[in-house]
Amino acid sequence: MSEHGFAPATELSAISPLNKGLGLLYGSLEPEAIAELGWNLLKEDLSLPCAVLYQEKLQSNLDFMRQFVKAYGMRLAPHGKTTMAPKLFHMQLEAGAWGITLATAQQTMVAWKHGVRRVLMANQLVGKQNMAIIAHMLEDPDFQFYCLVDSVQGVEQLGSFFTERGLRVNVLLEIGVMGGRSGVRNEAQLESVLLALARWRHSVALCGVELYEGVLHDEPEIRSFLKRTLDTARDIATEERFDRSPILLSGAGSAWYDVVAEEFSAARFSDPIEIVLRPGCYLTHDMGAYKKAQARILANNSIARSISGGLLPAIHVWAYVQSVPEPGRAIIGLGKRDAAFDSGLPTPALHYRPNDGAPTAAPQHWALTRMMDQHAYMEVSADDNLCVGDMIGFDILHPCLTFDKWRVLPVLDGEYRVVDIVQTYF
Amino acid sequence: MSEHGFAPATELSAISPLNKGLGLLYGSLEPEAIAELGWNLLKEDLSLPCAVLYQEKLQSNLDFMRQFVKAYGMRLAPHGKTTMAPKLFHMQLEAGAWGITLATAQQTMVAWKHGVRRVLMANQLVGKQNMAIIAHMLEDPDFQFYCLVDSVQGVEQLGSFFTERGLRVNVLLEIGVMGGRSGVRNEAQLESVLLALARWRHSVALCGVELYEGVLHDEPEIRSFLKRTLDTARDIATEERFDRSPILLSGAGSAWYDVVAEEFSAARFSDPIEIVLRPGCYLTHDMGAYKKAQARILANNSIARSISGGLLPAIHVWAYVQSVPEPGRAIIGLGKRDAAFDSGLPTPALHYRPNDGAPTAAPQHWALTRMMDQHAYMEVSADDNLCVGDMIGFDILHPCLTFDKWRVLPVLDGEYRVVDIVQTYF
Repeated sequence: MSEHGFAPATELSAISPLNKGLGLLYGSLEPEAIAELGWNLLKEDLSLPCAVLYQEKLQSNLDFMRQFVKAYGMRLAPHGKTTMAPKLFHMQLEAGAWGITLATAQQTMVAWKHGVRRVLMANQLVGKQNMAIIAHMLEDPDFQFYCLVDSVQGVEQLGSFFTERGLRVNVLLEIGVMGGRSGVRNEAQLESVLLALARWRHSVALCGVELYEGVLHDEPEIRSFLKRTLDTARDIATEERFDRSPILLSGAGSAWYDVVAEEFSAARFSDPIEIVLRPGCYLTHDMGAYKKAQARILANNSIARSISGGLLPAIHVWAYVQSVPEPGRAIIGLGKRDAAFDSGLPTPALHYRPNDGAPTAAPQHWALTRMMDQHAYMEVSADDNLCVGDMIGFDILHPCLTFDKWRVLPVLDGEYRVVDIVQTYF
Repeated sequence: MSEHGFAPATELSAISPLNKGLGLLYGSLEPEAIAELGWNLLKEDLSLPCAVLYQEKLQSNLDFMRQFVKAYGMRLAPHGKTTMAPKLFHMQLEAGAWGITLATAQQTMVAWKHGVRRVLMANQLVGKQNMAIIAHMLEDPDFQFYCLVDSVQGVEQLGSFFTERGLRVNVLLEIGVMGGRSGVRNEAQLESVLLALARWRHSVALCGVELYEGVLHDEPEIRSFLKRTLDTARDIATEERFDRSPILLSGAGSAWYDVVAEEFSAARFSDPIEIVLRPGCYLTHDMGAYKKAQARILANNSIARSISGGLLPAIHVWAYVQSVPEPGRAIIGLGKRDAAFDSGLPTPALHYRPNDGAPTAAPQHWALTRMMDQHAYMEVSADDNLCVGDMIGFDILHPCLTFDKWRVLPVLDGEYRVVDIVQTYF
């Protein structure tokens, strides 16, 4: 291992037999070999609980977002923190994404190590070791990187570090709202950050403006925030403080990407601009907040509505009924370790009894009422046909906090055959 | 790789440079080499956010529980699902533990693959592939394994599977309470499960009785549940339905281990019994529910009170202040991806400014008010001395759901030097 190189990709890709959600393996396995095993979820070839991705639905979601962004002439940098799965990053790039958005230096390293060559780190870069990790990648001339700044201290720390390394780091100025997350709040902050950027211009290059509208929940407020950000960007352009042409403008989580697209595409600039949207959850979608958001988008945005297919829930977590200890209650081998629980508990979608035909829709009245570390309580009717050993496929709410509970996720075709596997690097 | 063997341990132990919470690595690293790097948290040698363990406090916690269990003449099988860290399992075994408790077949595989030879899987074993994973380990004559049963269907499924494999699986009968999790609720269920066990006796060996008192929250109710379980065990013993001597009796999560110890140690049996306690969170302790539980235990239990040292919080998650965008609010680079948030948000414990002496206690009025995937909002005073780049060490609430967010946790000595590293296998 050279001090200037990294382990070959293969060293990082072997699938350990110790992962949950796999069948019994007798040793490490290269991901390419997974399809050859002939595993099928319905034949109980996987150890449950198990999170799975549905190949056809992923493809539908990739197609939808590619068409949406293309219709607006924008760029897509899907937020990779959702999945932290380089294989999915590459599917997104092959489906036309301009780059990958990430949240930390380590996440950026994961993407870069797997061949991603353009990263928007939609976050402040803080701390000596985090800067060192980024600096290491900046020595790769093919690597394009952007991070955010919103404070004089932040700019000075970046400037000081990267000056010493003889490197220049690209930044976007983050605009924020009172009561929100990061981002400059007012004119005085803005001016002081711009002055700091001017002082450190040789090592910190201002390339554009960024916001995260998802801290707000009211459409008129969001539109007003977007307009203020555009005004700020125009002012900075007029003062010739940007070091990039076209000027980068970036916004959009997974809930309001239509509104950002509408406002940003309508913006008039005398300089060339490049608009980058950053939704992450569209790839697997969910049956909670993002389903609701998508319904609003389809109702309001004619471009989204014109695209056939659309967003489909492409992830399930499957688990066994392990006990039906009293009338009306089943205990499921599915815990807080296995699925997100912060935006609502997983919802039973499919019911399958091994050796018994095909999965059927779970009855509407089945519902999780509580999750513990490794168990869930499912409310059923006393006369439901439910046995120990039955398999339940759960829709999940909040993809980000489901992916981070799995190191591997088998990818299934329409017949529940394992055709691929996705590895995560959280 | 033979079909009957596993990869050598070293193949599974290399630390990937892609993990969060490490310094910049140029390739994979063997864990033994970590101390040689000379990393120190206070010198910003680690990329934050980072979860760390404090070596001396871990040792204090190991000592406390060893003495507690020894004083009662009981066995300890710490719940390994808390940490899923084989290195910590071995520290627990070296500190006198009888075995390791786990919750799933995959967790059991992780322990077995790392040399643990006695596992109490305090859960039902359900599903073809999970049984296959356990069957594979049962072919190791040195491996001792127990799991739970609480239903006729469960016993029949185990019996059928293990008969076909020509193996016998050890089980404990789980006793439950109405409104609780798994476990038989009443005499009729009990009798039918015992009859099923009698039918499958050649492949399913009844070795004892188990309960999880942590589903209850009221001490008298818990004592009554423990007494009922002891009565059931005595009845089964009288009927000579146990296949093990001594009979195993197991209970105790991390909140009520004193009460279980008191009730079980006072039990009178005509047959020999072996009592196994299963607390898991004592190893790192926390500053939430388990701190409160331990205060109750010390107040009520004279043996616990007589042990010097006691339980200390042995885990922190460190993170940077990345923005102070408005008076009274700091944005911390610490998210739901980094620490448990289900039993209360992490609490600021230490404050450290790089290159500035030693960490100091965080002011009492600092508090997280919200966590997002990768960020937290920290409430501060407008005139607090807080800068971008400051490091905050957070106490955590709920160790289980903090460990599962980290693949590696550096172990620090009293000077914040990295002296070891713990790997997790979730």
